[in-house]
Amino acid sequence: MNKNRLEAFSDGVIAIIITIMVLELKVPQGHDLEALKPMWPVFASYVMSFVYVGIYWNNHHHMLHAIKSINGSVLWANMHLLFWLSVVPFVTNWLGESHFSEIWPVVLYGFVLLMNAIAYSILMVLLVKHEGEKSLLADAVGGDWKGKISIACYFSAIALAWISTYLSLALYILVACMWFIPDRRIEKRLADDQHNH
Amino acid sequence: MNKNRLEAFSDGVIAIIITIMVLELKVPQGHDLEALKPMWPVFASYVMSFVYVGIYWNNHHHMLHAIKSINGSVLWANMHLLFWLSVVPFVTNWLGESHFSEIWPVVLYGFVLLMNAIAYSILMVLLVKHEGEKSLLADAVGGDWKGKISIACYFSAIALAWISTYLSLALYILVACMWFIPDRRIEKRLADDQHNH
Amino acid sequence: MNKNRLEAFSDGVIAIIITIMVLELKVPQGHDLEALKPMWPVFASYVMSFVYVGIYWNNHHHMLHAIKSINGSVLWANMHLLFWLSVVPFVTNWLGESHFSEIWPVVLYGFVLLMNAIAYSILMVLLVKHEGEKSLLADAVGGDWKGKISIACYFSAIALAWISTYLSLALYILVACMWFIPDRRIEKRLADDQHNH
Amino acid sequence: MNKNRLEAFSDGVIAIIITIMVLELKVPQGHDLEALKPMWPVFASYVMSFVYVGIYWNNHHHMLHAIKSINGSVLWANMHLLFWLSVVPFVTNWLGESHFSEIWPVVLYGFVLLMNAIAYSILMVLLVKHEGEKSLLADAVGGDWKGKISIACYFSAIALAWISTYLSLALYILVACMWFIPDRRIEKRLADDQHNH
Repeated sequence: MNKNRLEAFSDGVIAIIITIMVLELKVPQGHDLEALKPMWPVFASYVMSFVYVGIYWNNHHHMLHAIKSINGSVLWANMHLLFWLSVVPFVTNWLGESHFSEIWPVVLYGFVLLMNAIAYSILMVLLVKHEGEKSLLADAVGGDWKGKISIACYFSAIALAWISTYLSLALYILVACMWFIPDRRIEKRLADDQHNH
Repeated sequence: MNKNRLEAFSDGVIAIIITIMVLELKVPQGHDLEALKPMWPVFASYVMSFVYVGIYWNNHHHMLHAIKSINGSVLWANMHLLFWLSVVPFVTNWLGESHFSEIWPVVLYGFVLLMNAIAYSILMVLLVKHEGEKSLLADAVGGDWKGKISIACYFSAIALAWISTYLSLALYILVACMWFIPDRRIEKRLADDQHNH
Repeated sequence: MNKNRLEAFSDGVIAIIITIMVLELKVPQGHDLEALKPMWPVFASYVMSFVYVGIYWNNHHHMLHAIKSINGSVLWANMHLLFWLSVVPFVTNWLGESHFSEIWPVVLYGFVLLMNAIAYSILMVLLVKHEGEKSLLADAVGGDWKGKISIACYFSAIALAWISTYLSLALYILVACMWFIPDRRIEKRLADDQHNH
Repeated sequence: MNKNRLEAFSDGVIAIIITIMVLELKVPQGHDLEALKPMWPVFASYVMSFVYVGIYWNNHHHMLHAIKSINGSVLWANMHLLFWLSVVPFVTNWLGESHFSEIWPVVLYGFVLLMNAIAYSILMVLLVKHEGEKSLLADAVGGDWKGKISIACYFSAIALAWISTYLSLALYILVACMWFIPDRRIEKRLADDQHNH
């Protein structure tokens, strides 16, 4: 089964998710700098979610680039990932509106990031299984320590929210920084592979 | 006539439909778990519609994968299907807002699912007619019993809403489960076909 | 210059335009059939605009299918058409909200249809000029009588709105019916062309 | 690394940005021409932003057309550009709602245009670096005087807003006019290149 239409559909959904979050940036009540000030938490949470969705698109791009074909399970694992990504705008709005200082919006944000990470891992495992243990992807992904650290961080962040929501947010930013660099493993392996042929 | 742009346009429309439903998940009034509770019917109906639209994308993907070209009638039958899919966010919102316990939102949801099933059948019939009775698609689709059972279920669900709306919802979920597995008939036939060549 | 990305971008914009109109179908105030009744003009205008935007996508698809390359002027003529298409959701909402009985919403709707028709004609003329008078497209388009009749109808409809808005609406529906059938001239010429080679 | 999916994703995001701005054109309160009048600043700012986003799509299209491959830095530079483009609908709404006569909405609009111009320049520099100093793109871009003039104009416009917001707006329109013509340097060089081979 061909991967092109899966890529096109995922691109479409992710493009919409990353863009509709801006609809929450409502026109301020006044026309001076004072009117903009109360918007900074909404804007800050928009930036964080934009980066997160951007990271997912980047990694999704790299992962699908490394494979040759897909199957029915992959289609649904991908749909599952898109579902959890589609919930990001909702938790982003709640997080921004709560000014980062309330426990539950921070916890729910972390929970949705966690579900995204799990959904991504499931997709990765199914793709490795489909491509075979000796495939380019299997080799590039390796032990997937970045994915495992992320999931551990999200769990910690959710627990830490009861101590300080700012600790949780610091962990979310830390994980984003860790992923900011696209998965060089796949990139490097692809480059090596092309040199060998 | 080439099928690529029809696929691209359909992907775009379906991607937007599946994503704009999340705009109905409004920011809760408070910042605790209590504030989230009244949202569960809106969220549950979002999940159900996400799965339904996902099923349509999956089957649409499989069906168009099996064909070679399209014609003018197919273009309009596809637009007709996209129209009924585009009404899904509206009925989803009404269903969620009515907490599943009112007759008419459940009936209208079922009616839109019914129209989608009919629109999909029309598209399938036109494609089989265009490809020929001996084509891969005609062979794979066969008697289309899954489509016929779905339509019967939607009719029953609409009638049952006057007895209990929960019976109707159970039927909607049942049909979704039945379709959850992508159309293996087409997938299998395609695989067989590739082996023979 | 390659036409693929122009097609992809146009598909994206048109897919969004055709879908965001559904956001105007707000959740009804009640939960019975009575609550749905006041929505029929909004729904009817949604259907009409869906068909119109669908017609533009269909014809755009056919026209670009018949050409080989594009240039800078074509890019901007296409952007001009997309601009007027993007205003359709706004005039659709006003038309639906006014229950078809007010003059100005009907006039503005007609004006936007007129500007779309003019923008489409400009794009067609530039494409014919770019492809050459002896091209497949030039031959297929011919005198473009359908485009000319449409523009005349829109002008008449705008003028007739002061007598009866229902006359104007009848004309809008008439033009839609006329275009409903995709431009068979191009389709036929393409088929002939393939037979000759 | 292949550029196709980067183009598709950028097309999707830009298509959504250019279209969701129309959601700010709310249904007028009345049904006559008087009801439309207060909307002209919102409509005018929509037109200006539509042209600006259209210019970015056009130039992005030309720039990526001239290159052969991309890398990880380019992916993120492109995401950075998409981020600043995604903020355009927000500043457009504030600008339109303020009737062009308030300082801060005009300044913020100019600031976002400035950040877009800088993000575009970063993307261009990274692409030239990736393609090499002797590449088609490096040759076509040259000194990038248009980009430099634009950035100077945005700075001037921001400063001039304290004297007269209309001077700033005149500068924004002037820059748009300057860019209206797609980057003929790249177009010309591509044409020359094809003739030589």
